[in-house]
Amino acid sequence: MPHIKLPEGVPGILGPLTQYPDSAKHLSGLAQAVLRGPSSLTEAERELIATHVSAGNECQFCMNSHAAAARYLYGDQCSVVDQVIANPKSAAVNDKMKALLMIAGKVRRDGRSVAAEDVNAARAAGADDRAIHDAVLIAAMFCMYNRYVDGLATMTPQNPDDYVHMGAHLATRGYVA
Amino acid sequence: MPHIKLPEGVPGILGPLTQYPDSAKHLSGLAQAVLRGPSSLTEAERELIATHVSAGNECQFCMNSHAAAARYLYGDQCSVVDQVIANPKSAAVNDKMKALLMIAGKVRRDGRSVAAEDVNAARAAGADDRAIHDAVLIAAMFCMYNRYVDGLATMTPQNPDDYVHMGAHLATRGYVA
Repeated sequence: MPHIKLPEGVPGILGPLTQYPDSAKHLSGLAQAVLRGPSSLTEAERELIATHVSAGNECQFCMNSHAAAARYLYGDQCSVVDQVIANPKSAAVNDKMKALLMIAGKVRRDGRSVAAEDVNAARAAGADDRAIHDAVLIAAMFCMYNRYVDGLATMTPQNPDDYVHMGAHLATRGYVA
Repeated sequence: MPHIKLPEGVPGILGPLTQYPDSAKHLSGLAQAVLRGPSSLTEAERELIATHVSAGNECQFCMNSHAAAARYLYGDQCSVVDQVIANPKSAAVNDKMKALLMIAGKVRRDGRSVAAEDVNAARAAGADDRAIHDAVLIAAMFCMYNRYVDGLATMTPQNPDDYVHMGAHLATRGYVA
């Protein structure tokens, strides 16, 4: 049961977003700008970083909904999402994404742990400043969203089909109401 | 040195906010809405929660700038800010703030660790749903801002006077450019 009164039957972050619209406007706008706006990373790659960070934080709602969005966006290559959840180092992603997922994992644990060599490895594999910025910001953002969802004990759907629908919605409509 | 190109001499989060205005708009708007908008907590209390979380994450830029804003807002009672940085349990804050700082500290470490008894203790001390929501969201937000600042290795001013000016600016003008 959620720690505060939230609309009944509304899953995950959608509960507090509905109940507290003043902050919701900015929380949704941020997701839309960073996960769907201009970037040198594809939308699928950005959703994959969001999934990896949410998996590390063990936030079931965020991990499952963004994994579903990433699977939708990867289409035929969607098995890469489960590979990244299991172990990014052995997943079938390119070296640029491996390096960015490594940076995102470090940001998740402690921003100060990102080293110059981590960033150099990402650059050597083709990441530009924008990609490095976006990987760091997405990791930081999901450290926020995961804690908002779990710190309020919001409702986590148990039916996998619910996430398939959410993922398709996020992939095709994005984050703005 | 920052991990990506940022405007020279611009401290902390202001570097990436200046360089990446599309996300900055929402990052600043969120801070303004949650730290300055309607709440059952005072602006001083909200800055104190931001300071406590940034201190726990050892983000020097965020801790020092929000501590300075909190000191400005607390005025004559400003020594409470250093007490909370040292140890919230023995600080001269009321029981409601003690309970909310405890919740914020738990959200910082892991959102799932907030227990019903933590929330009940806050309610018994006078916190309403809005205060509990805002404490959780502020803690989650600063887990993002702290990581954005440190994950990009932004510039941290070493002169304490710089933070006094920043704190006065944040206290009187807020977070919107």
